[in-house]
Amino acid sequence: MSTLWDQRYARRIQLIQTSAIREILKLTQAPDIISFAGGLPAPEAFPLEAIREACDFVLSEVGPQALQYFPTEGVVPFRELICGLLAQQGMNVAVDNVLITSGSQQALDLLGKVFVNRGDHILVESPSYLGAIQAFNAYGAEYIAVPFDDEGMRADALEEALRASPKFIYIVPTFQNPTGVTMSLERRKQVVELADRFGVPIVEDDPYSKLRYEGEHIPTVLALDSQYRGECEEYCGNVIYLSTFSKTLAPGMRMAWVTAPVEVIRKMVQCKQGADLHSPTFNQFVAYQAAKDGFLDQYIEKIRAIYGERRKVMLAALEKHFPPGVKWTRPEGGMFLWATLPEGMDAGEILEKAVERKVAFVPGGPFHPNGGGENTMRLNFSNAQPEMIREGIARLGQVLKEELGE
Amino acid sequence: MSTLWDQRYARRIQLIQTSAIREILKLTQAPDIISFAGGLPAPEAFPLEAIREACDFVLSEVGPQALQYFPTEGVVPFRELICGLLAQQGMNVAVDNVLITSGSQQALDLLGKVFVNRGDHILVESPSYLGAIQAFNAYGAEYIAVPFDDEGMRADALEEALRASPKFIYIVPTFQNPTGVTMSLERRKQVVELADRFGVPIVEDDPYSKLRYEGEHIPTVLALDSQYRGECEEYCGNVIYLSTFSKTLAPGMRMAWVTAPVEVIRKMVQCKQGADLHSPTFNQFVAYQAAKDGFLDQYIEKIRAIYGERRKVMLAALEKHFPPGVKWTRPEGGMFLWATLPEGMDAGEILEKAVERKVAFVPGGPFHPNGGGENTMRLNFSNAQPEMIREGIARLGQVLKEELGE
Repeated sequence: MSTLWDQRYARRIQLIQTSAIREILKLTQAPDIISFAGGLPAPEAFPLEAIREACDFVLSEVGPQALQYFPTEGVVPFRELICGLLAQQGMNVAVDNVLITSGSQQALDLLGKVFVNRGDHILVESPSYLGAIQAFNAYGAEYIAVPFDDEGMRADALEEALRASPKFIYIVPTFQNPTGVTMSLERRKQVVELADRFGVPIVEDDPYSKLRYEGEHIPTVLALDSQYRGECEEYCGNVIYLSTFSKTLAPGMRMAWVTAPVEVIRKMVQCKQGADLHSPTFNQFVAYQAAKDGFLDQYIEKIRAIYGERRKVMLAALEKHFPPGVKWTRPEGGMFLWATLPEGMDAGEILEKAVERKVAFVPGGPFHPNGGGENTMRLNFSNAQPEMIREGIARLGQVLKEELGE
Repeated sequence: MSTLWDQRYARRIQLIQTSAIREILKLTQAPDIISFAGGLPAPEAFPLEAIREACDFVLSEVGPQALQYFPTEGVVPFRELICGLLAQQGMNVAVDNVLITSGSQQALDLLGKVFVNRGDHILVESPSYLGAIQAFNAYGAEYIAVPFDDEGMRADALEEALRASPKFIYIVPTFQNPTGVTMSLERRKQVVELADRFGVPIVEDDPYSKLRYEGEHIPTVLALDSQYRGECEEYCGNVIYLSTFSKTLAPGMRMAWVTAPVEVIRKMVQCKQGADLHSPTFNQFVAYQAAKDGFLDQYIEKIRAIYGERRKVMLAALEKHFPPGVKWTRPEGGMFLWATLPEGMDAGEILEKAVERKVAFVPGGPFHPNGGGENTMRLNFSNAQPEMIREGIARLGQVLKEELGE
């Protein structure tokens, strides 16, 4: 039957590669591997009891409504709660500007569906988030990749890239996946101004900004865009903002949201309705119940302490075990750091040897939509416990030293 | 800003109409309306206690794993349970043939993504399920609509339509949404043989077959296709089969599945990964826990009694209150029946008058992808309680009588 099916797939299916993330998730399933590969939160910190209480409350007090079909936009008190969370970070968003999505991954897919014709260009950081590239690829997107330094996307290169009329700019400005780099305030302001000058929307993907372990909060691009435009009655400007409870509550609930001008939300709602009708009513009520009344702040405090410690442990272990010539970022938050091996080394080959020693990471190549970065690697520090981090980085350092002939 | 956004939407967005289903769900939200419009289960029958127990068990016994990211294919024991349910209905499906989806709506969207290039034709029943049309529209599908009688899609018309080389056949053969009609055994066999002869895959959407209130179970098209082909080691043939827990447990959990040959599942997994990474881990474990050990069978028994009674009440009320000249189907199961008004009447106009009398239904026009059916209406009998059904049909009969000048 194989041939019958092969002939029937849509052309766009040919564009979809076997997914790197999928293979990563498989690697992290092997029980005896120390994995720095996934982007997984620490499971031992999950708020099982808070979610149990929330489930109880929802099933006894909210009742049947929580198990019924629901309008696509999502549960109103949940969306109001999200508006409140965003207001704490200086973002002024009304309920009608918020759409609940099934993970931020769905928001990325909906943006591809709403905006991307085959062959359209999207302006991205290089490297950029793999899941976004994967979502946009399904609609035949191509990429203008703007180089990166330790303050984020370079403004001179951005201006040049904007002349090619991309459909939108996609950025993860805070504790970026994969590099951990945070775009500086100055750069953010430049991005806002340049995007406005060229009339190009910005998609700001912000799953990590609540996970800061040192330094001061930097306003989001959405907040800066509003400041730049001055007082608006409604959601104004051209920033579409994505965030999620996957890092600050539990990814297995798949609760995330996108904020945008009302007319963009309307288009996304139409697309979401055809895509999955609505996100689970039950999960929306449970996440709302668990997150309200201050629990979320307490819980974020708890995981910030855990992840901050792990980041410190990983940085110290890298200092101790990695050979000279390897460089890495020192993120102030988030879940990842990024190592650069000496020119000419191939992180894919290193991974094969690392897996023999029972340690895993993600080679950086696939994060570069237009190629390059073969000598880079992404290391996650949120999932493994400190002892495992020390052991895993020691093993990885050993592999690198052998490879470098030391 | 309006113009800026308008210019940026992808061309396919122009194809997406304001959704009829969305407007329907809004109508059903008004508290004082007797609604036969939605496809909602009876909320007072929802298994709140069973789901509460399942949540408790999952959070205490399955633990952190249930809140973590998970591979796209879904939770293995849950997929095994689904294989067992399908086996009860004579379908031989292995775990690798099952993909968990976020409602059947997502399976429809993934099928569009995997198979449909703009301008491809899909062969559908006329009328057909609105949510499927909406999902496929987003990929630029066009339709070959095959006429329908009280045994389902007409085989002579099907053969003619298959000559136009559709990408696949989409059918809801059992208690169809919107008509409630069930395709006869003979017709199913003809569809299987014709699809094989023309080399065209069949998508069988089967949310309702467990909700039978009279008559005998008819084998699914998937089961008949396997019989037709004889013994196979693996999932063979060309039927892709969709089903869901939305009607037999709770729609607000968004738990559904698709079964297909392994290579088709692989493509759908790639697309789903870009679409929402995976369906909620928590919901999969909870649905598994609630459904295993026989609870599902007991619960289905319970709702069959409730919906069977409501169907009877609605049929009796139609007999009593609807004017001569109006015809309707007498479904043996499911959630809908279908009324046909005298030629020249417009169900859309009737709806406006009905809403003034606080009763709602769905006009049948939008269920016809290539137009027609303006004098038809879909009536849901699962959601409203018997007293409300009597009252609502009486009001609707009054509107129709006034319209007919009686």
